[in-house]
Amino acid sequence: MSNPVAVEVTRGERVESAHRGAGAVVDADGGVAFAFGDIDLPVYPRSAVKAIQALPLVESGAVDRLGLGDADIAIACASHAGEDAHVAAARAMLAKVGRGADDLECGVHWPLGERAARALARAGATPSALHNNCSGKHAGFVCLACAEGVDPAGYVAPGHPVQRAVTEALGAVTGARLGADTRAVDGCAIPAHAIPLRALAFGFARFATGQGLPPGRALAARRIRAAVAACPSLVAGRGRFDTEVMAALGPAVFTKTGAEGVFCAALPDLGLGLAVKADDGGKRAAEVMIAALLIRFGGFGAPLDRFIAPGLVNWNGTAVGALRPAGPLSGATAIPTGPP
Amino acid sequence: MSNPVAVEVTRGERVESAHRGAGAVVDADGGVAFAFGDIDLPVYPRSAVKAIQALPLVESGAVDRLGLGDADIAIACASHAGEDAHVAAARAMLAKVGRGADDLECGVHWPLGERAARALARAGATPSALHNNCSGKHAGFVCLACAEGVDPAGYVAPGHPVQRAVTEALGAVTGARLGADTRAVDGCAIPAHAIPLRALAFGFARFATGQGLPPGRALAARRIRAAVAACPSLVAGRGRFDTEVMAALGPAVFTKTGAEGVFCAALPDLGLGLAVKADDGGKRAAEVMIAALLIRFGGFGAPLDRFIAPGLVNWNGTAVGALRPAGPLSGATAIPTGPP
Repeated sequence: MSNPVAVEVTRGERVESAHRGAGAVVDADGGVAFAFGDIDLPVYPRSAVKAIQALPLVESGAVDRLGLGDADIAIACASHAGEDAHVAAARAMLAKVGRGADDLECGVHWPLGERAARALARAGATPSALHNNCSGKHAGFVCLACAEGVDPAGYVAPGHPVQRAVTEALGAVTGARLGADTRAVDGCAIPAHAIPLRALAFGFARFATGQGLPPGRALAARRIRAAVAACPSLVAGRGRFDTEVMAALGPAVFTKTGAEGVFCAALPDLGLGLAVKADDGGKRAAEVMIAALLIRFGGFGAPLDRFIAPGLVNWNGTAVGALRPAGPLSGATAIPTGPP
Repeated sequence: MSNPVAVEVTRGERVESAHRGAGAVVDADGGVAFAFGDIDLPVYPRSAVKAIQALPLVESGAVDRLGLGDADIAIACASHAGEDAHVAAARAMLAKVGRGADDLECGVHWPLGERAARALARAGATPSALHNNCSGKHAGFVCLACAEGVDPAGYVAPGHPVQRAVTEALGAVTGARLGADTRAVDGCAIPAHAIPLRALAFGFARFATGQGLPPGRALAARRIRAAVAACPSLVAGRGRFDTEVMAALGPAVFTKTGAEGVFCAALPDLGLGLAVKADDGGKRAAEVMIAALLIRFGGFGAPLDRFIAPGLVNWNGTAVGALRPAGPLSGATAIPTGPP
């Protein structure tokens, strides 16, 4: 990996740290509107593709048969902070199929949100699988299995009907060939497939437009985008990128963070999908990169300004430095590249 | 910065993320035993130089005049987790000069240690400046001012006698020229000076041997190393690199982490100082890099094995990947380079 420096971290007059990365902005025909770094190296998108992984739940009709609504769909697409509302949404979804936390196979961790974690501790409680940031996605998997008349037990395994459907959707939407050789295990135990950034951006352009997707899948994508736009507080949490940006911009933008410095997004009105990865896995760098691309291509200012160049303050609140886009992301002009 | 990839993060059969970095192993004459990347670019060592910043407290005789012991000196060198013992040590040190948390100018944050933060929340409490990971260093600054008959107020400012003494020690031990042009502000509000890795490693070789230092400073360095070796639990916290490694290896090794991917260390018996920085500021990369160098040059196995190649498990405890040294750190043979 020899990708360019795309984000710099300053302290005083110096660059203290620097993040390399790659990124792609692609339309629903596969045309590359902008790219930097190696966009053909397969990377694990991790949680950045949760909305695509949620397609089978909607497309299968399970959502309608179970009476699931926007909140259920949104939490199924979430990497949530473990706030009370997140836990309640995942619990409510499971209840609709008579299931509970014990049916989740994502494992247990303290809430990602520090505030939520401390609130839980202050209440003298300990976390359950419902606090896992992926609990909504897993609740969706359990619901899909139940709606299809399949035993949900073991739903995280690659051979389970749920994961077979999820992998099919991910491969079909992104156009990437997925198999045992692209597969590893994600933090929440489900398969994690490696997919090039070019294919991820292409997939999100199709997710955003429905172009090139079967009608039922295109409708499902539209419903998922509407649900997330209706419930942005459920997909991440207070102060977090996805929640703050989608709450402010509504259906004009879809964004989703993933572990290890991946970020995917879509601009439905422009028919564009976006995908970036920081080489080193840095979340702070991925946020600056995707914010820079969303500002450049979407024409947004606030609320992205605070994410493209977040200031660094010390514990006394004094400004000591900042993050900033660099190299291919430092200019204001898009650099078009040829079609793939 | 075009340093080599020195740490890889794997998931399944692929490299998911990679960290570039630089590092130096230097003797007390300035001879470079090993180096990779750019070791002449000034970097902010941040908290990695706390032990050197503690020299004036000991060298001035303040420690003896105030009756400070090993625990006081160790907490003055700490980036602690905010455990009860850490808070108590900082409080006890301040009490020896009739001061308290209100005299600390480091700012307030929740304990770095998640367990300690949750314990504080569970008790219905909120943090004070004593929970700041730098509270011991700041308590040392307050003690130094009081012992010298100087008003401690404003001790974080570059022009205060305390910071003038600290900067003089840092420059003299590392041989780096420090001034307004090398200075920024650290997370805890004190000056942060940019220093090349070569000079940092050289400084820690001298800190470890006393070679080339005035007798009083050499004695102070020895006393600080002995105090840290006697109280390793105070310098970081349960499960943390510095505490675990120094608790297991005793005075044969000195290590100290710093923010933004810096790590410094010393091997007193071999007369070597070590310094690394991950370009992207990644703490996990710095730990692997310094562990690789300590194993290569110190001949240690356990307890460093778990830090040189930590396994990554998901929330169910399943192995999903690992960190590993790469490039210049992947071989077992040192690559000597010429003297500086």
